[in-house]
Amino acid sequence: MAMEARHAILFESVRIGPKTLPNRFYQVPHATGFGSIKPRTQAAFRGMKAEGGWGGVCVEYAPVSTDSEETPAVSAEIWDDVDTANLRLTADAIHAHGALAGIELFHGGAYSVNGASRGTRIAPSTRGAEMIWGAGAREMSLDDIGRVQRDFVTAAVRARDAGYDIVYVYGAHGYLLTQFLSTATNHRTDGYGGSLAHRARFHLETVEAVREAVGDECAIATRMCIDGRDSLPGVYIDEMLEVVAWLDPIVDLFDVNVGAWPEDSGTSRYFEEGHQRPWVMRVREATGKPIVGVGRYTSPDLMASIIRSGAVDLIGAARPAIADPFLPRKIEQGRYGDIRECTGSNICILKEETFAHVGCVQNPTAGEEYRRGWHPEEVPPIDRPDRAALVVGAGPAGMECALTLARRGLAAVHLIDEQDQVGGHLRWTRQLPTMGDWGRIIDWRAIQLDQHPAIEIITSRRMSADDVMDYGADIVVIATGSHWAGDGSQPATDVRISGAEHALTPEQVMSGARPPAGRTVVVYDTEGYYVGPGIAELLVLEGCDVHLVTSHPVISPVSDGTLEGDVLRRHLHEAGIRMHAGVTLSAIDEAGARGETSLAEPWSLPECSVVLVTHRLPDDALARELRDRGATVHVVGDALLPSMVSEAVFDGHRLARELDGPHPDYPLAYRRERPGRAD
Amino acid sequence: MAMEARHAILFESVRIGPKTLPNRFYQVPHATGFGSIKPRTQAAFRGMKAEGGWGGVCVEYAPVSTDSEETPAVSAEIWDDVDTANLRLTADAIHAHGALAGIELFHGGAYSVNGASRGTRIAPSTRGAEMIWGAGAREMSLDDIGRVQRDFVTAAVRARDAGYDIVYVYGAHGYLLTQFLSTATNHRTDGYGGSLAHRARFHLETVEAVREAVGDECAIATRMCIDGRDSLPGVYIDEMLEVVAWLDPIVDLFDVNVGAWPEDSGTSRYFEEGHQRPWVMRVREATGKPIVGVGRYTSPDLMASIIRSGAVDLIGAARPAIADPFLPRKIEQGRYGDIRECTGSNICILKEETFAHVGCVQNPTAGEEYRRGWHPEEVPPIDRPDRAALVVGAGPAGMECALTLARRGLAAVHLIDEQDQVGGHLRWTRQLPTMGDWGRIIDWRAIQLDQHPAIEIITSRRMSADDVMDYGADIVVIATGSHWAGDGSQPATDVRISGAEHALTPEQVMSGARPPAGRTVVVYDTEGYYVGPGIAELLVLEGCDVHLVTSHPVISPVSDGTLEGDVLRRHLHEAGIRMHAGVTLSAIDEAGARGETSLAEPWSLPECSVVLVTHRLPDDALARELRDRGATVHVVGDALLPSMVSEAVFDGHRLARELDGPHPDYPLAYRRERPGRAD
Repeated sequence: MAMEARHAILFESVRIGPKTLPNRFYQVPHATGFGSIKPRTQAAFRGMKAEGGWGGVCVEYAPVSTDSEETPAVSAEIWDDVDTANLRLTADAIHAHGALAGIELFHGGAYSVNGASRGTRIAPSTRGAEMIWGAGAREMSLDDIGRVQRDFVTAAVRARDAGYDIVYVYGAHGYLLTQFLSTATNHRTDGYGGSLAHRARFHLETVEAVREAVGDECAIATRMCIDGRDSLPGVYIDEMLEVVAWLDPIVDLFDVNVGAWPEDSGTSRYFEEGHQRPWVMRVREATGKPIVGVGRYTSPDLMASIIRSGAVDLIGAARPAIADPFLPRKIEQGRYGDIRECTGSNICILKEETFAHVGCVQNPTAGEEYRRGWHPEEVPPIDRPDRAALVVGAGPAGMECALTLARRGLAAVHLIDEQDQVGGHLRWTRQLPTMGDWGRIIDWRAIQLDQHPAIEIITSRRMSADDVMDYGADIVVIATGSHWAGDGSQPATDVRISGAEHALTPEQVMSGARPPAGRTVVVYDTEGYYVGPGIAELLVLEGCDVHLVTSHPVISPVSDGTLEGDVLRRHLHEAGIRMHAGVTLSAIDEAGARGETSLAEPWSLPECSVVLVTHRLPDDALARELRDRGATVHVVGDALLPSMVSEAVFDGHRLARELDGPHPDYPLAYRRERPGRAD
Repeated sequence: MAMEARHAILFESVRIGPKTLPNRFYQVPHATGFGSIKPRTQAAFRGMKAEGGWGGVCVEYAPVSTDSEETPAVSAEIWDDVDTANLRLTADAIHAHGALAGIELFHGGAYSVNGASRGTRIAPSTRGAEMIWGAGAREMSLDDIGRVQRDFVTAAVRARDAGYDIVYVYGAHGYLLTQFLSTATNHRTDGYGGSLAHRARFHLETVEAVREAVGDECAIATRMCIDGRDSLPGVYIDEMLEVVAWLDPIVDLFDVNVGAWPEDSGTSRYFEEGHQRPWVMRVREATGKPIVGVGRYTSPDLMASIIRSGAVDLIGAARPAIADPFLPRKIEQGRYGDIRECTGSNICILKEETFAHVGCVQNPTAGEEYRRGWHPEEVPPIDRPDRAALVVGAGPAGMECALTLARRGLAAVHLIDEQDQVGGHLRWTRQLPTMGDWGRIIDWRAIQLDQHPAIEIITSRRMSADDVMDYGADIVVIATGSHWAGDGSQPATDVRISGAEHALTPEQVMSGARPPAGRTVVVYDTEGYYVGPGIAELLVLEGCDVHLVTSHPVISPVSDGTLEGDVLRRHLHEAGIRMHAGVTLSAIDEAGARGETSLAEPWSLPECSVVLVTHRLPDDALARELRDRGATVHVVGDALLPSMVSEAVFDGHRLARELDGPHPDYPLAYRRERPGRAD
């Protein structure tokens, strides 16, 4: 394999101020939840991207002042010598592979949380305290302005001392610098408010001061939202381009994106690859300096074409670099089919938003580099490779497990599924409206499995316990997935729905047992994620009159964590789906569906059919029977515990990694970073 | 001052197994958010309670297994030697003051989060995965049961080695042991399911195993929900008493409470002091062993009477011990008026629920013992005590600041308010329905201020800038509070409400400018806490037809963090208030109120008056004028930034503590616990 010539442009070096990026692949700053709390986890996570070929690798936002403190989110505080030492671990890990290390100096202004510091939020102008716990901000005095600018400089010096090559002044996403720029939040009448020049002054002065302090040794970058639709109103694209032009002489790299985070990190359900291009392309009008833009790029052709267009100089990535840290190397080596393409599911963001450890649907090793010692491209050789493994069930967990076992050197891995295709539940969930790109999870694995000589895939074969026993495999893994409970149970409310036998499950809808067109249908979603809305949209497209009902306070609360909630609900509304939140269903019969609101008032809908999207139960009968017969079997994925697909993939991967351990069904201990330990 | 003789019973020692509690004051296990992440913060926080006279002091829940992992909440993981060493800091701090140290060994079962560990949740029986990210649980095998019991024993040995005197097996609040006990969650057909004896077996065996391992050296405690209304259905009080009787021979201390957390930690708005007594009193029927119960006790008379009744042996406390770590010492010394009584606001819980650093409306030093070095009863002497201070504004921040300045030894502190009473906004918010106990915040301070010889309180005096300049004080603190914006602005939505001049503010309602009875009133609440619902309830009591409208997805989202959301909304519904969530108001005129739903549909209500509970703005005109004249003034509390009352009190306290610093308006750095540092 060799790289296509047209992609060579991606591997040109790019000069930014006093530094040179070895290529055009650039992992932009993005949150991980590691920051000040997990410095070694961060170092291994970022270092892996450098190893995978990203020429520039940045850590997440680094608050410069204690009144910009992010608890419960974790940021990279850069306030004292301990912070400097901890951040140096990451810079060193990035440098070990020849990449440049970047750090994004930050002040949140009125959007600071201060959940730990209890600091008083500051902003260009007084902001009223609307939510009593996420209160407003006080107007900055000139003394405050000078102090925060000094904090930026002090932090920049620390960043330089920690070894960072690229120092950002963060002016995007509605934070302090944008608050100065926006007429909606800046009502000052002094030299920092009013005209555009005055509103941009804080940004320009801060960049200038940072450049003065470290510009000889570090490249100076700034991040800006360019679309005129930032989290704050009152920031317009023509004005932004003017500010870019003013910044041009003192900035070495412009990192540009659209402002509203749900669009900047838009999911594949609602935003296509490169969706930011119409905005980002405008920046070249205002500067000749290097520009980096993002857009969930995974296609080398698209990347090369936008570089060639001259619009940007670097391909920025956050999520695609999580899904595949080795994306650049794979392009360079012409291993295009090996690229784990980001699905744009935003499971990584859901995890960060819920303050969990980061994870990825495509890359089960993401975030596990330090604490479990996992490498995305390397696996340790397995003990006794002459063994044969049988994996029953070719959904995400089974596919990942089989693949990892084979990569570890097992002589024979048989992956068997009763369906005529591999993919498990993703075979049908990828067919729900907007869900197409999720299919990449199984497509990538199908390609990898096909290519591996030790793997044999057998479809359309249902395995009984006898069959498994007779098969004679040394290692048996059960990955038989789960099914939607249509029995009327709904664990969180403990209300049992009577007459559930009249209802359909999601699988029944997808397999063709659809309610007749024009008929009123209640889709009752207590799961709270994408299947309920997906089924609802499918049925409305087929002509049904659809009511989406949920016991949760809002429709699809999980989608709020993936940044999709608002767009999803508007999308459903525009599609004509009527939504009812806070309703617990209790009965289905010929007269319709009945239940109760969260205020204990009766709720009902006459003459409707019902689809129950309540919860899933494991398909574990085969595993149970085998265990009852004394067989040693391992169970992974939804057959063990129905969960998100990221966890199913992780689970299949973990078992394959830890199969040689003393008790492979119990995960090995992972390393935890805490005070009192420095290993 | 001397203790009343009838309270002496509270200071009797109590034998629990091999240990003796020095008195009957017992700080039960409760979460803090410190746990494994902030071991020194925990040690100082718990040690302070021992110093204040609590005879038993416990740390929070300590998970024994990685499949019971609590991220994003912080627990006291007890899995390795680093954990043991870190937990020893707290045991040592408790022992330094002669108290016993307790630790609550825990497994969450199906309620585990596993946000960091990615472990597979386990439970007695399979639990469906209803919310895809807070998924279900797999059924425990006999192997799992044995393994978890061994984990409890291993953790108990670690706890003993770390110096803990009391080792809990946690069987309450719906966690793993309760999941075994409940017929709703335990469908096993083996020896751990079915009959009560089988369902209680896991609990009994675990206690027995822990006792076997450490029972000679440690007292064995167990925590149980006794009310038959635990977070899980299917646990009945008669059965619980039977289980208590079975546990009696092997348990040294029963820690009992009601099960549903919103009731167990019930706020003063809906639950009175001692509200758990009807349930807790039943336990004595089943055991002669020591019993501890909670109920937000702050009245020494009530405490002594329930001890004398024989129902319980120890006065348990979580919140009252946060509000006043020195509650026992103050009783012992007869300093009854000095007790900072818990208000039952649950701000401490709101902070924990939002993963912020703990805080308290009454005790500004709570959680600040280590990181800022603050002691609730001691303040360092101030530099140049011969100075005089003028504090303008006698709300919570001004009162706290004046009091702390005087306690630091300042010769004269004048506290001046334009109203005829001290208390600031709490003068009227305490009059809202259910809010009475919040008055304790200002009542306690009023008593303390009255008693202090250096403090002079002057009411009914409005201070102009001239007045302040003429006053000639060496130190000037402005604490003039805030007012509700009635101008139609609503920061979070950036929609300006036209016709706001037709609306009333909360102060106008409270000062008598009420809408006529019988008239339809919209209370538009974008703040999202208690003022909107309070005004709505007040108006409905006065005969108005009230619609409570909010732009938030639910009514009063902040109340969900204080555990009040469900009870509040039901209470409002029962009071006849109609609630509309997700509606953003945009116009008020003679025809009524108009706005838009979150789905961009029009919303309107004809012929109504409107109360705007949107946000507060600082009353900072005096401070601005003084600064414009070149005066040095410090601004605290809502006059600086309107926020929760806990933050106003903290702010006033902080300024008084740090007044001698180089720039007292900027908080001094606080100590952060991180990897790489062990100071």
